[in-house]
Amino acid sequence: MQDFPAFLIEGYKNFMSGRYTAERDRYRELAENGQKPTTMVIACCDSRAAPETIFDSGPGQLFVLRNVANLVPPFGPDGTFHATSAAIEFAVVHLKVAHIIVMGHGRCGGITGALATAGGHAPEGHFIGKWLTMVKDVADKVEANHLLTPSERQTALERIAIRQSIGNLLSFPFVKERVDQNQLSLHGAWFDISGGELWTMNGESGDFVRPDLESIQMR
Amino acid sequence: MQDFPAFLIEGYKNFMSGRYTAERDRYRELAENGQKPTTMVIACCDSRAAPETIFDSGPGQLFVLRNVANLVPPFGPDGTFHATSAAIEFAVVHLKVAHIIVMGHGRCGGITGALATAGGHAPEGHFIGKWLTMVKDVADKVEANHLLTPSERQTALERIAIRQSIGNLLSFPFVKERVDQNQLSLHGAWFDISGGELWTMNGESGDFVRPDLESIQMR
Amino acid sequence: MQDFPAFLIEGYKNFMSGRYTAERDRYRELAENGQKPTTMVIACCDSRAAPETIFDSGPGQLFVLRNVANLVPPFGPDGTFHATSAAIEFAVVHLKVAHIIVMGHGRCGGITGALATAGGHAPEGHFIGKWLTMVKDVADKVEANHLLTPSERQTALERIAIRQSIGNLLSFPFVKERVDQNQLSLHGAWFDISGGELWTMNGESGDFVRPDLESIQMR
Amino acid sequence: MQDFPAFLIEGYKNFMSGRYTAERDRYRELAENGQKPTTMVIACCDSRAAPETIFDSGPGQLFVLRNVANLVPPFGPDGTFHATSAAIEFAVVHLKVAHIIVMGHGRCGGITGALATAGGHAPEGHFIGKWLTMVKDVADKVEANHLLTPSERQTALERIAIRQSIGNLLSFPFVKERVDQNQLSLHGAWFDISGGELWTMNGESGDFVRPDLESIQMR
Repeated sequence: MQDFPAFLIEGYKNFMSGRYTAERDRYRELAENGQKPTTMVIACCDSRAAPETIFDSGPGQLFVLRNVANLVPPFGPDGTFHATSAAIEFAVVHLKVAHIIVMGHGRCGGITGALATAGGHAPEGHFIGKWLTMVKDVADKVEANHLLTPSERQTALERIAIRQSIGNLLSFPFVKERVDQNQLSLHGAWFDISGGELWTMNGESGDFVRPDLESIQMR
Repeated sequence: MQDFPAFLIEGYKNFMSGRYTAERDRYRELAENGQKPTTMVIACCDSRAAPETIFDSGPGQLFVLRNVANLVPPFGPDGTFHATSAAIEFAVVHLKVAHIIVMGHGRCGGITGALATAGGHAPEGHFIGKWLTMVKDVADKVEANHLLTPSERQTALERIAIRQSIGNLLSFPFVKERVDQNQLSLHGAWFDISGGELWTMNGESGDFVRPDLESIQMR
Repeated sequence: MQDFPAFLIEGYKNFMSGRYTAERDRYRELAENGQKPTTMVIACCDSRAAPETIFDSGPGQLFVLRNVANLVPPFGPDGTFHATSAAIEFAVVHLKVAHIIVMGHGRCGGITGALATAGGHAPEGHFIGKWLTMVKDVADKVEANHLLTPSERQTALERIAIRQSIGNLLSFPFVKERVDQNQLSLHGAWFDISGGELWTMNGESGDFVRPDLESIQMR
Repeated sequence: MQDFPAFLIEGYKNFMSGRYTAERDRYRELAENGQKPTTMVIACCDSRAAPETIFDSGPGQLFVLRNVANLVPPFGPDGTFHATSAAIEFAVVHLKVAHIIVMGHGRCGGITGALATAGGHAPEGHFIGKWLTMVKDVADKVEANHLLTPSERQTALERIAIRQSIGNLLSFPFVKERVDQNQLSLHGAWFDISGGELWTMNGESGDFVRPDLESIQMR
């Protein structure tokens, strides 16, 4: 095996001389007392959409699951390995987070693959195609809608998939129960890589809107 | 559903006025031409161990999968959903990354859960226990070793699990083939939350050592 | 017999023109009034791990026993010669030290020999193999643990042996009595030759941690 | 157990900022390639007589055994634990040192104890008295010699004990063989704590003389 990538070591040196030095007490406190994040983010693996970057988050703030296209499967306790369900369960049951954000983004390669599959051009491989069948029904419908341009279909499916994942979250009994008891709230967000725009989902309507940044104060 | 968490909107405002403004061209270029990360990181969901923070990484650099305890299952194309395998396949086959880093960390709650399970105290829930059975055999052996303190057992399993995940990566034919052709290299890393120490795995011996930061130059 | 090694005479000349000249009064006072060290260190014979060097100690500070692998046998007043037990008794009963440090170190040849013996390759000789049987039970268990790399087994046994030696110290009635009366405290330490790191043992858990050098003030 | 003694941590900080920093490459080389000391020193535990201090020695130079009164027992492969014999064997057979120095010192508490025992006042304890019987025969004779002052008797026994230990070294077959083949040489030394004087033993006569410091050049 080759040497550890040098650019990561360089980055680590920057982290140590900068952020770690500035937040040393916070890191030590977090090591000693454990993490107590209030918020889980379910995001995409995409290299352009790291939640900690976009939300300028510090250590201990976000419990972050990342998979291709930030998808949540429906509840299905069938005995196979479930990376996503296990992480959600850990966040909700054990860490007792108060918020789950499903965060999609523009130009998502996973969503592009789902639409390509719907158009008869499934991506190569054993696993990625199977993974994307989670949004097959909606992808087929979106892909067939030629009133929308390809770019509009991409954005549409990115947002529809977020709403579907939030629906699937509610199929988990331990999520539903806490949402009903106002102990947990579910949110959608969508990030536009190019312009850096953040859109948040209106929980009532499902619409994605740009938040009025001026009116929001730190809690 | 409640309002989108205000601290995330505040963080996003910081991102926009700071990093995004500084890297606007990079974001636009990445949006236009797509991501071409050279490196995949498989990390834990833990809120204290975000790879982009620890490696001070910018947009487009790291394709990041995060699950509980940064585990890679063995190759098993069985038709069920595989979040982890799908992301690895996407990174290797589609993005053609040159490096995969399996990055564990100290005080990992997932590893603690695996050891607790081995000790007869499985964590509550449908999924998390099942997920952690991926390291059951080694967790049983480590937990039974009372010559090590609980903290030493924790560190030992965190590192053994990284080695196991790297072994499992090699069970994927598309990974093995590229490793054999020197197109892909696999690495282990372990981050100590408290002291901020990064340890990297020696690919020959499997040992974790602290890299000599002074001798490493940017490539 | 050959001449006394010249490099030692050279070193002695340096000592006389440097340290002795600077500390002449201290040496004279120590000769006149006798030694009153507060601390005994039980260390290895290894040429890379001299306690006076690592702790930058002056004359009169440390009463130092050194044997292969810094081992303490269990209490056994059986009439044979006991270099180690005699030194401990002299330090505790006669000098009334307040601290005993059992100090191990990385890459210890004695510990390597103990693991090699466990693996069926005992080192040559009449005495060294017998001496190392003092850690035979734990060495056998550590050597059999192939989840750990050889280097990890070495570090594990180095630390386990320190804990065992501290346990054996407590089997000496005159040690136990003074510990119970808070007249004597027992400590573990482990020195990493390569990086110069000192790790100290937490007396409650037995874990080895790096002391927070910044927060420690001279007593 | 109490906290690790603060003066040792202070000393360690001095070591790290001073000597370790200056000799970092040497420590790393010694860690990587192992120790290869040319010289073993058998010295006393006394806090005023550390060989590394008196010979101003650096890491890797001296393999150091320390016991009470720097005694070597006669060869006796009887199956009990032998701290001293094991260390000698390790140095000679495994490290293949070229020199062994038996180094005594003035005002040695162990020698004082041996003389007191001869005078009917054995030191308190299970082990220390037994250990000192190794020099009982000569101690009895020295103590009975009232032509010498008490202080002279002390110095006499310190030096007689060194000669006896060198004789005992030659009772070890693996020592004798190498001495006969000119692969190993045995030396005596005696350090006067008060004036810092070093006396070395003439191998032919057994006399202790002060070396002519001016005539000795670095090898």
